[in-house]
Amino acid sequence: MKKMLLWVLVLLLAGSSFAFAETDTETANAVAIDTVWILLTAVLVFFMQAGFAMVETGFTRAKNAVNIAMKNLMDFSVGTLAFWAVGFGLMFGADRFGLFGGSGFFLSGANPATAEGLRTFAFWMFQVVFAATAATIVSGAMAERTRFVAYLIYSFVISLFIYPISGHWIWGGGWLGNLGFVDFAGSTVVHSLGGWCALVGAVLLGPRVGKYVRCNGQISVKAIQGHNLPLATLGVLILWFGWFGFNAGSTVAGTDLSIAFIAVNTNLAAVAGAIGAMFLSWIRSKKPDISMSLNGALAGLVGITAGCANVSPGSAILIGLIAGVIVELSVELIDKVLHVDDPVGAVSVHGVCGAWGTLAVGLFAQPEYGGLAGLFFGGGLKQLGVQALGVVSLFGWAVAASLVLFGLLKVTIGLRVSPEEELRGLDIGEHGSEAYAGFQIFTTQ
Amino acid sequence: MKKMLLWVLVLLLAGSSFAFAETDTETANAVAIDTVWILLTAVLVFFMQAGFAMVETGFTRAKNAVNIAMKNLMDFSVGTLAFWAVGFGLMFGADRFGLFGGSGFFLSGANPATAEGLRTFAFWMFQVVFAATAATIVSGAMAERTRFVAYLIYSFVISLFIYPISGHWIWGGGWLGNLGFVDFAGSTVVHSLGGWCALVGAVLLGPRVGKYVRCNGQISVKAIQGHNLPLATLGVLILWFGWFGFNAGSTVAGTDLSIAFIAVNTNLAAVAGAIGAMFLSWIRSKKPDISMSLNGALAGLVGITAGCANVSPGSAILIGLIAGVIVELSVELIDKVLHVDDPVGAVSVHGVCGAWGTLAVGLFAQPEYGGLAGLFFGGGLKQLGVQALGVVSLFGWAVAASLVLFGLLKVTIGLRVSPEEELRGLDIGEHGSEAYAGFQIFTTQ
Amino acid sequence: MKKMLLWVLVLLLAGSSFAFAETDTETANAVAIDTVWILLTAVLVFFMQAGFAMVETGFTRAKNAVNIAMKNLMDFSVGTLAFWAVGFGLMFGADRFGLFGGSGFFLSGANPATAEGLRTFAFWMFQVVFAATAATIVSGAMAERTRFVAYLIYSFVISLFIYPISGHWIWGGGWLGNLGFVDFAGSTVVHSLGGWCALVGAVLLGPRVGKYVRCNGQISVKAIQGHNLPLATLGVLILWFGWFGFNAGSTVAGTDLSIAFIAVNTNLAAVAGAIGAMFLSWIRSKKPDISMSLNGALAGLVGITAGCANVSPGSAILIGLIAGVIVELSVELIDKVLHVDDPVGAVSVHGVCGAWGTLAVGLFAQPEYGGLAGLFFGGGLKQLGVQALGVVSLFGWAVAASLVLFGLLKVTIGLRVSPEEELRGLDIGEHGSEAYAGFQIFTTQ
Repeated sequence: MKKMLLWVLVLLLAGSSFAFAETDTETANAVAIDTVWILLTAVLVFFMQAGFAMVETGFTRAKNAVNIAMKNLMDFSVGTLAFWAVGFGLMFGADRFGLFGGSGFFLSGANPATAEGLRTFAFWMFQVVFAATAATIVSGAMAERTRFVAYLIYSFVISLFIYPISGHWIWGGGWLGNLGFVDFAGSTVVHSLGGWCALVGAVLLGPRVGKYVRCNGQISVKAIQGHNLPLATLGVLILWFGWFGFNAGSTVAGTDLSIAFIAVNTNLAAVAGAIGAMFLSWIRSKKPDISMSLNGALAGLVGITAGCANVSPGSAILIGLIAGVIVELSVELIDKVLHVDDPVGAVSVHGVCGAWGTLAVGLFAQPEYGGLAGLFFGGGLKQLGVQALGVVSLFGWAVAASLVLFGLLKVTIGLRVSPEEELRGLDIGEHGSEAYAGFQIFTTQ
Repeated sequence: MKKMLLWVLVLLLAGSSFAFAETDTETANAVAIDTVWILLTAVLVFFMQAGFAMVETGFTRAKNAVNIAMKNLMDFSVGTLAFWAVGFGLMFGADRFGLFGGSGFFLSGANPATAEGLRTFAFWMFQVVFAATAATIVSGAMAERTRFVAYLIYSFVISLFIYPISGHWIWGGGWLGNLGFVDFAGSTVVHSLGGWCALVGAVLLGPRVGKYVRCNGQISVKAIQGHNLPLATLGVLILWFGWFGFNAGSTVAGTDLSIAFIAVNTNLAAVAGAIGAMFLSWIRSKKPDISMSLNGALAGLVGITAGCANVSPGSAILIGLIAGVIVELSVELIDKVLHVDDPVGAVSVHGVCGAWGTLAVGLFAQPEYGGLAGLFFGGGLKQLGVQALGVVSLFGWAVAASLVLFGLLKVTIGLRVSPEEELRGLDIGEHGSEAYAGFQIFTTQ
Repeated sequence: MKKMLLWVLVLLLAGSSFAFAETDTETANAVAIDTVWILLTAVLVFFMQAGFAMVETGFTRAKNAVNIAMKNLMDFSVGTLAFWAVGFGLMFGADRFGLFGGSGFFLSGANPATAEGLRTFAFWMFQVVFAATAATIVSGAMAERTRFVAYLIYSFVISLFIYPISGHWIWGGGWLGNLGFVDFAGSTVVHSLGGWCALVGAVLLGPRVGKYVRCNGQISVKAIQGHNLPLATLGVLILWFGWFGFNAGSTVAGTDLSIAFIAVNTNLAAVAGAIGAMFLSWIRSKKPDISMSLNGALAGLVGITAGCANVSPGSAILIGLIAGVIVELSVELIDKVLHVDDPVGAVSVHGVCGAWGTLAVGLFAQPEYGGLAGLFFGGGLKQLGVQALGVVSLFGWAVAASLVLFGLLKVTIGLRVSPEEELRGLDIGEHGSEAYAGFQIFTTQ
């Protein structure tokens, strides 16, 4: 309003040159603030790659640590190239039928001499680290038994095609976003997608040798311990650190001051998730368990990702707390009932809690925080319905696409290393290195 | 001045609407810069949790590494909730008698639809990571023998009540701040408070089994080695990294350009602390000691925290150098003379060097740097007196409050694990996990 | 243009006070954006110290891990003081004969009460972490056998004198910069300089005991394995994370929107380097090697550092890919043909790939990206010639200066520890500590 008055006045006084000059300088500063914000938060999200690498390393066995490191390094590498060449264009290019994007491949059209072009570069940087997050989630569930070459290929395909297509539906101008589906920073777009692909991968791979032993018609479940819990802890703290960039950066604007409560919500959900999971493990197993607590923090973070810009701090705590409970029950269900071997709990943390967080938007969204009303704050069932539709659609897409992908890999080059290699460890078999030369380690586990 | 001229002119020309429009846009950019700065530095300070976790893990034994990780994860978690519900209101709410704040509990009153409310969210985010720092300091001094449940409770109480009350005195509009006490980023507010609570905790707990052995009326002191010095080194570097946010972020404004020399001072004091401690250890024990050097860097950082916005780079070097010497002498005194068992030197680093840094403001403050004059730069003894009063007051408060807290815990649920559990390690006893499954480790130490 | 029109109008309307008022406020915001950007990217670059420490630790043996940590901590510490006292003035002080700077020692002349002075503080902060990077590169090539006291001295001298002098030639107003030599973020200024000093150091030191065994006139080369590849991986990811600050921060302005494509180029070159090195190792040794892949990512980063502001994303991929190939061939050449023992490959990563990246500017620079034309984009051979001249000059300077430095150290206090100490490990010999107390480790390697 005031701005409009200024314009009128200015045009009267001095012609458009004055007005543009004013606006230009002010705008230039605003653009710079946004660009600085996008890049710095993108860098924080990039660092989540280190978090994923450390969490996975810590939660698995020493004999596979080099393989885990290589997977995490290379999924980002091949994923970046795939997203640069094709993925970004499929996700954010000009919409085709609400289904996919069709321009902007190879960063073409981003003119470095214009502010618009430079904004595209910054936006790409932010988006590529998101794509890499989706790809790297899968690696945890398939750890300790996947052929490295198969891993390279599916990481490439996820970043090239699977992630961008459904990403377009929600963030790129596609049909789900047009229906009003809200997933602010990617509980569904990034985390559930990665989690459901991980589920399919883990099922098709089968469990690690010795994980489920059938004996007299009964299956006994063995807990395979991680070899470096301090590193896993560091990994979770790195992920938490990076998640501030993931969620608050998703405004893609530092001039959007809602970044303040987004950061607060992110933090509150994480602590509530850790607390919820810790107390549940304490009740169930008489001791506060570290793996559960760490996964609880991640569950809280995944849970708040969809709604961080639309809910109050109190709701963020509730969403996180519930996520911390859900993740633990889901880990138990998947492991002990479904007998799917997910070494780090990736399906539960990212898939299940991502779905929970997405539905939670339809429950807890509060108009003061982002203009949207969920069921508990005066909205009807419609938003919740759209959220549920999105959750189901993404599940369907991820399962279908990754069934094709992993199925093809399985029947062609093979998904899995030999049992001998698995027993000895993938580090020697796949990479010819050992992670901890000189340390005495029992690899009989 | 120029701004005033602009206003006059503008009002003459076009009425207030023009003026407000101008000011609004300019202000909006400034507010965005400040918000971005506050949030990004808060995120850096958050990451210090990882630093504390790694330092403590590295400096203690492998059999307690899971417990250390859990403590660091959960003190931040329960502390965040305590600070959200009560602590923030006690510290920064409307002043009551100069003693505590009385509003703003549960982040109430922070309206997400106003710039003012959003600023409160950002400010809360910055403050909660400070509160968590105070709480986590205690954990190091009480490591390797404290019951986990007792740890949870006292972390909660420190963030709920102990830290916010004295914090209000200095930063929240209370009596010490009103007297002119200066502690820019928290040498006393955060570090000394944590350090003195840690001292009381370590005294009430008693030393680890085998640490001090009485033999013929003489006490022999055993050095218990840390199990992972590379992780401890990483932890110190993470803390140093985060400390740039801690100190320079304490302007809570990116438009306050003194952030530039604050960062410089922070860095110079840290390097001087590392150098001072290294050379002293070299002289005393013929070899440059890594634990001392790492603690020296932290000592320099703690030492400069109070005065980083008020002293010159040269003074920062001196303050850091002296802190590096003090920390080493203090560690020796506390361990070998007082026989208080502080596994990581937290009392010396945070308590003693925090006090030193606070007094140093009264000595080295230089008007060009922040408008304040210390004894060596034309000020009298008054500032030094106020600084000393603050140091003593906080010591008294921290000791009194934590005596009550830890005393109550000791006589009710108990502070300490059983000697059997301590010998076997808290990881198995408290959490049912081991940190390094598969590695061959001697736990007889 | 529009800005000029504004000025004219404004002067006509209201006299200079109006104009200055406008400009002041806008400028203040721009200055704040720049300062925030410089400091936050400086902090990212600082964190690279942790990356170097972890990479070096991981790639060497457990018995020397304390020594590695101490070296990395203390080179930054003594280097900071040297750069504060002398180095910064030599590098960025008022030019003398195109050869060195001659003012600004001890940060004198940086007035904290002026915007100009505050900018100097911020600029110093950014530069000191660069100087420390150059110094710490050397440490990797000289690992596992260098006397700690010699290490302290040469780190001091490199930051005091060697790095600043050649830095002045290029960035400080000296002769190479004046000739048109372009090294945007320091492929040559920082990385090659460090790499060539490392080469001289490694040659003068000689190989580690047992590395090259002469047998019947033939030299057999032993691969000495690193002891902690997960830490090395973390180190590389930390370096990559910090490198966004290194390259994009080198605009020293957040208002310079080219930071967007600089970040994109940095990332693309890194992933291409990792991919290039991985596939080459796969072809050559039948398995994708982790050390090569990690060094490939670093090679890509070093390679793009000179040209990140002058090349297209496609060229960045090519530059990185070639760097990934070069680094592997160079490691082989230096190790197996020249028999120079560089435990972490620092000479190849920083020296050789730094030279490659610098030459690549003369080939790939594209006018749209920074106004400069390389050979492949319409420029002639002149730019390439200047780039080559810079590469050769820096090589000459680094070799000459470090021959004097290391030569003097060798004939006076000695560069190398005794063979007994080397076999037992420098941790006990130099520092009286062990890195992993309690772990069973074979140190016979």
